[in-house]
Amino acid sequence: MNIITISREFGSGGRELGKRIADILGYSYYDREIITAIAEKHDYDENYVENMLESKFPFTMPITYGRTFSYTDATGQQAIQLMSTQYKLLREFASKGNCVIVGRSANIILEEFDPLNIFVYADMESKMKRCRERAPENENLKDSELKRRIRQIDSGRAKHQKFLTDQKWGAKEGYHLCINTSGLDIKAMSPVIADYAKGYFEKR
Amino acid sequence: MNIITISREFGSGGRELGKRIADILGYSYYDREIITAIAEKHDYDENYVENMLESKFPFTMPITYGRTFSYTDATGQQAIQLMSTQYKLLREFASKGNCVIVGRSANIILEEFDPLNIFVYADMESKMKRCRERAPENENLKDSELKRRIRQIDSGRAKHQKFLTDQKWGAKEGYHLCINTSGLDIKAMSPVIADYAKGYFEKR
Repeated sequence: MNIITISREFGSGGRELGKRIADILGYSYYDREIITAIAEKHDYDENYVENMLESKFPFTMPITYGRTFSYTDATGQQAIQLMSTQYKLLREFASKGNCVIVGRSANIILEEFDPLNIFVYADMESKMKRCRERAPENENLKDSELKRRIRQIDSGRAKHQKFLTDQKWGAKEGYHLCINTSGLDIKAMSPVIADYAKGYFEKR
Repeated sequence: MNIITISREFGSGGRELGKRIADILGYSYYDREIITAIAEKHDYDENYVENMLESKFPFTMPITYGRTFSYTDATGQQAIQLMSTQYKLLREFASKGNCVIVGRSANIILEEFDPLNIFVYADMESKMKRCRERAPENENLKDSELKRRIRQIDSGRAKHQKFLTDQKWGAKEGYHLCINTSGLDIKAMSPVIADYAKGYFEKR
């Protein structure tokens, strides 16, 4: 089974890259699908699930008593439950066949599937440009607000991963390939990156 | 002018990758050639130049007096002189035509040539394996000694770059592509990475 995980800074175009690679290679693609599946399983709203797994999660870190841990509130317990469902679903998806999975700490959760882990990043200027191009028409964030939002989302992702592993989110040692998309034409470069993945899986 | 710079951890195979990419693309290749040229220019021994620019250099950091700085010893002054020659030679090489340059902080020194900056790294196990395969027959370093040597050389490289810029050696933000060669077949992957470079230069 060839699994490609894409971890990415918000606004770096990692999602677009992942989707394009999956299309080129004929792999399944999972991104939002994971949130939808978790929400369905628990009969929760998708936004609630997303919020719990990303921005809310870090506020509910466990308190450790020896080798067991407990949570201070119900929200924390719910977050753990969602994480556990996510864990199971990711492994279910990965077992089905070749795929590209964007986000969700899949690089860590699917470690034993020996995935190709890609990290996608860009400088702040490129990320802001990308966010502006894709923002809803009525969104009028100031530059400073947009920057803060980008940092906040990435910080949520980093904390999400920190819950699962000591390996730091975005530290190159944890990935096979780190791609800086600043000024990069993602559409034009996707076939080359797909080739990299193909070569990687053939030779390992 | 298309310039590719390769920064690399010792033992990661960055030199091999750089040479192969240069061959595939028909670019000039500079590595040891730079040391040779500096040595010739000053009529010094090559090993002395290399030693001064790598391992010795960090021990002779300047003391700053306001906006000027002075050196505490003659070795420091000589190191500065060699750095300055290296700076001029790198720009001379880069001006001649498309090339791949390995090491020598070329990513920083040639910034205005808008190079494609690649960082090559690997886990310690892979680096040690690579070093053992390439070591002279009579070299019998213990694992701990080899590890220390690898770290020492990389630390020299990091300090060399630190003298030129605030941008941290090996921090992914300073590179366009970071390639983890652990378990990677460099020969097999070089054409794909050469394609990446070609695509990068075509689209920028």
